Amino acid sequence: MEKVNLKQKFSKFSDLWSPKVIAEMNNYQFKIVKIKDDFVWHSHEETDEVFFVIDGAMSIHFEDSIVELNKGELIVVPKGIRHMPSSEDECMVMLVEPRGTINTGDNDGDLTADNDIWV
Amino acid sequence: MEKVNLKQKFSKFSDLWSPKVIAEMNNYQFKIVKIKDDFVWHSHEETDEVFFVIDGAMSIHFEDSIVELNKGELIVVPKGIRHMPSSEDECMVMLVEPRGTINTGDNDGDLTADNDIWV
Repeated sequence: MEKVNLKQKFSKFSDLWSPKVIAEMNNYQFKIVKIKDDFVWHSHEETDEVFFVIDGAMSIHFEDSIVELNKGELIVVPKGIRHMPSSEDECMVMLVEPRGTINTGDNDGDLTADNDIWV
Repeated sequence: MEKVNLKQKFSKFSDLWSPKVIAEMNNYQFKIVKIKDDFVWHSHEETDEVFFVIDGAMSIHFEDSIVELNKGELIVVPKGIRHMPSSEDECMVMLVEPRGTINTGDNDGDLTADNDIWV
């Protein structure tokens, strides 16, 4: 039975916008990601997605609002809702979503990361 | 689109071993709970369960080991595995599990909490 230390896991990589899996619960994955600057607008048609800020601050832009998230805050982005994560300074985030969820959702492109990469 | 601040949510209750829902993602719930002393031995036959320590320290006893969890550490307890959470001092924990999961699993008793209580 192995525990996972998030700070230690974050120390193992430096690439941005490239989620790494740290744990699996049923068919869901817990991923950590370092982010900075703007991501791409996208949505996930099949699933909600949780962002939980572990360190730093970020914002999530929606079509009619912007939500600022600080350390210790989380948000559920409902399925099908277009959003654009962004961060002025580097921010460390934990994501929870079903196994197989692609980071760029319906907007495949340069920022689409390999999936199911464990750290 | 509402964010959730965990520290603010923890400030709203003081009862122990009584998980409160703070967010729902698909059919999963994110719950927070304050714990102290020993819980009861139990297992969840239908689901894995995630414990993520938000503040403090706790341990999870398994039949052949004890895992100590500190702030910023998480563990996935696999379905069907008997476990007994415990904490010397009060500890603040986030749980992730399917909606409807009962805190005491297969061991209904005095510590069985009402389910689906939001904070």
